[in-house]
Amino acid sequence: MTEPVTEFDALGLLREIEDIGRDPRRGGYSRHLLDDADRDLRDWFIERAVRLGLEVTIDRNANLWAWWGTPGPDAFVTGSHLDSVPGGGAHDGPLGVVSALAAVERLQAQGFVPTRPIAVVVFAEEEGSRFGIACLGSRLLSGAITPSRFGELTDAAGRRFVDVARDASLPDPGYDAESLARIGVYVELHVEQGKGLIDLGAPVAVGSSILEHGRWRIDVRGQGNHAGTTEIADRRDPMLPAAAAVLAARRAAGLRSGSRATIGRLEPVPGGTNVIASRVSAWMDVRAETEKDTRDIVAEVQAAVADAAAAEGCDASVVEESYSGEVRFDPQLRDRIAATLGAVPVLPTGAGHDAGVLAAHVPTAMLFVRNPSGISHAPEEGADDAAVHAGVDALVRTIEDLA
Amino acid sequence: MTEPVTEFDALGLLREIEDIGRDPRRGGYSRHLLDDADRDLRDWFIERAVRLGLEVTIDRNANLWAWWGTPGPDAFVTGSHLDSVPGGGAHDGPLGVVSALAAVERLQAQGFVPTRPIAVVVFAEEEGSRFGIACLGSRLLSGAITPSRFGELTDAAGRRFVDVARDASLPDPGYDAESLARIGVYVELHVEQGKGLIDLGAPVAVGSSILEHGRWRIDVRGQGNHAGTTEIADRRDPMLPAAAAVLAARRAAGLRSGSRATIGRLEPVPGGTNVIASRVSAWMDVRAETEKDTRDIVAEVQAAVADAAAAEGCDASVVEESYSGEVRFDPQLRDRIAATLGAVPVLPTGAGHDAGVLAAHVPTAMLFVRNPSGISHAPEEGADDAAVHAGVDALVRTIEDLA
Repeated sequence: MTEPVTEFDALGLLREIEDIGRDPRRGGYSRHLLDDADRDLRDWFIERAVRLGLEVTIDRNANLWAWWGTPGPDAFVTGSHLDSVPGGGAHDGPLGVVSALAAVERLQAQGFVPTRPIAVVVFAEEEGSRFGIACLGSRLLSGAITPSRFGELTDAAGRRFVDVARDASLPDPGYDAESLARIGVYVELHVEQGKGLIDLGAPVAVGSSILEHGRWRIDVRGQGNHAGTTEIADRRDPMLPAAAAVLAARRAAGLRSGSRATIGRLEPVPGGTNVIASRVSAWMDVRAETEKDTRDIVAEVQAAVADAAAAEGCDASVVEESYSGEVRFDPQLRDRIAATLGAVPVLPTGAGHDAGVLAAHVPTAMLFVRNPSGISHAPEEGADDAAVHAGVDALVRTIEDLA
Repeated sequence: MTEPVTEFDALGLLREIEDIGRDPRRGGYSRHLLDDADRDLRDWFIERAVRLGLEVTIDRNANLWAWWGTPGPDAFVTGSHLDSVPGGGAHDGPLGVVSALAAVERLQAQGFVPTRPIAVVVFAEEEGSRFGIACLGSRLLSGAITPSRFGELTDAAGRRFVDVARDASLPDPGYDAESLARIGVYVELHVEQGKGLIDLGAPVAVGSSILEHGRWRIDVRGQGNHAGTTEIADRRDPMLPAAAAVLAARRAAGLRSGSRATIGRLEPVPGGTNVIASRVSAWMDVRAETEKDTRDIVAEVQAAVADAAAAEGCDASVVEESYSGEVRFDPQLRDRIAATLGAVPVLPTGAGHDAGVLAAHVPTAMLFVRNPSGISHAPEEGADDAAVHAGVDALVRTIEDLA
């Protein structure tokens, strides 16, 4: 090794990218698939992986693979994603990538000889912030999205995903049996997005399951008009049903223990102060412990929107954009990792991950790293230094055991 | 005249600009102060005015003046604006400008010799869609906005008004006593933004008054967080108080005859589907027949937002951005124009106009032109051909009488 060990310290790697994709308006980071920040992060990842002697490939869906050894089959794969929600934190995604690089560097320095190929993966568009579908890279890879579906995806500027992909020299996105077949096991390390590890006083946990969850798009169409001249009785204002949706989502989730329903994105069109909107689009994120709860929440919101729309002379629709059933990570893998790491807690999460998508195809597991704020998808997200180091240690020991 | 008369037909002039500033996403037009569309419209106006032999000047506030005769004092001024709301119609603003050009052309062709200077004016940023203050050009000109106030104005991209103005070679915006002193009388022709003339079966009306009106900015600050992992009990979601504001505005306006309250612009930050918003800004437009009604509506909305914010652990503020008392147009001028035009109706309006701002300083009047849809600030806004011609006729006769 010509490089000092500390170059691949996970905290140091996070510092290397701490200025990429900062969002001065929202705070935090906005890093979306193949935008300038995401390209900078990809270039940085490739440079770092190559320096570790890894062979970097990009698959047909913009996922990056850095191989230690000959690519697949039956590879031990670890990694996460580098994209963020709009105004997200520094750790959601990148922590899993830098921890994987740091673990590989540590194992190389220790003279570890893998018995199977190892890959560090960067999945594309995990947050779905550009094209609306979370875990887009792993869903495409595993065939979870049909070509007719992803052929329709557009970003906020109206650019089609397939055109953006083609311009990035990815002319043929979609099901990638070859890449999927290379994955023998997938272990994703991720910052915890809640308070479980704070409450338990532990730095690292093994994941047990992901709440089932989905996204619904609510569209309300009314009649745009002048805010000053249009009498109340003559209005067909789509903001009223949209506001009813926000309140109904909260009410419906509050009635069902462990459920969450959120409208965090709402766009009136045209969006002028002195203009009654002509239409409003809102996106609702729902998660619950059972599919019945999720469906009931959506149905209640749908009914509330329909009632408010009828009262206002508007049309409304509620359309499912994505739905993922509950994921239970492979119990044998989970127990084996927990045993290797000693007395670590086992925790569920309400957050979706590429590991959840891949769980339908290969044994997957997750490691969660303590977040002192308990906050995620916001600038206040954090990971304390001790927990970051404990996370890398846990990943190293997991690789030693499994690879 | 080397040009055919029909070149300055108002309908033909509208057709000349019908492709400038179309908004494919919202429909209609988005033409905002000194954006590409607005600059194209300004260039077009100057070219047209010069072809009529008018002398074009730009004042320190980006208002354009096309002079027939030596500039002021005691000029007869007519015109309107060329900017639009986001996704607005083709007539709100441009109809007054093209009708003024067509009227000047007709009078020139008739050999009319004015007894006082005549100017066709294009006021800047009447809709306030870029910098948030409606009638910005006329308010600046008449000293209705202090330098400290307009020095703070920024657009959605964070650019300061004063920097945008400076880059457009307008280094010193603000009170313009010289331009104001040139205006002897101001008559603004405008498409009607309601159904008054449809109901009356008349093509043209004279304006009587403008409802008092104002804009308030509502800010709610909560805690951004992950939509999937944050339990309902732990949330501080600013969308809830914002939704309460939308409903409270409708409720409060509905209780007071002739009142309107609208939230047509609402921006959650960061605006991600799987993200609880950290803050929401919304803008409320309120108009009523009395200031008491307006203040009571704002107070009710403020109370509703404060209650909802307290329940959600959010902070909220409601801040007045602008307020204009009721405007009654000069009764003598109104009656003289009505007498000149014969049996025309006299109508109030709920829409603000530069004529309303200038009414505090000089005699002003308005002519309204029938809009077959009754809709404005939306692509469906219209003006039937017969009414457009009747509007130009009315403006010609008004100028013959007063200039």
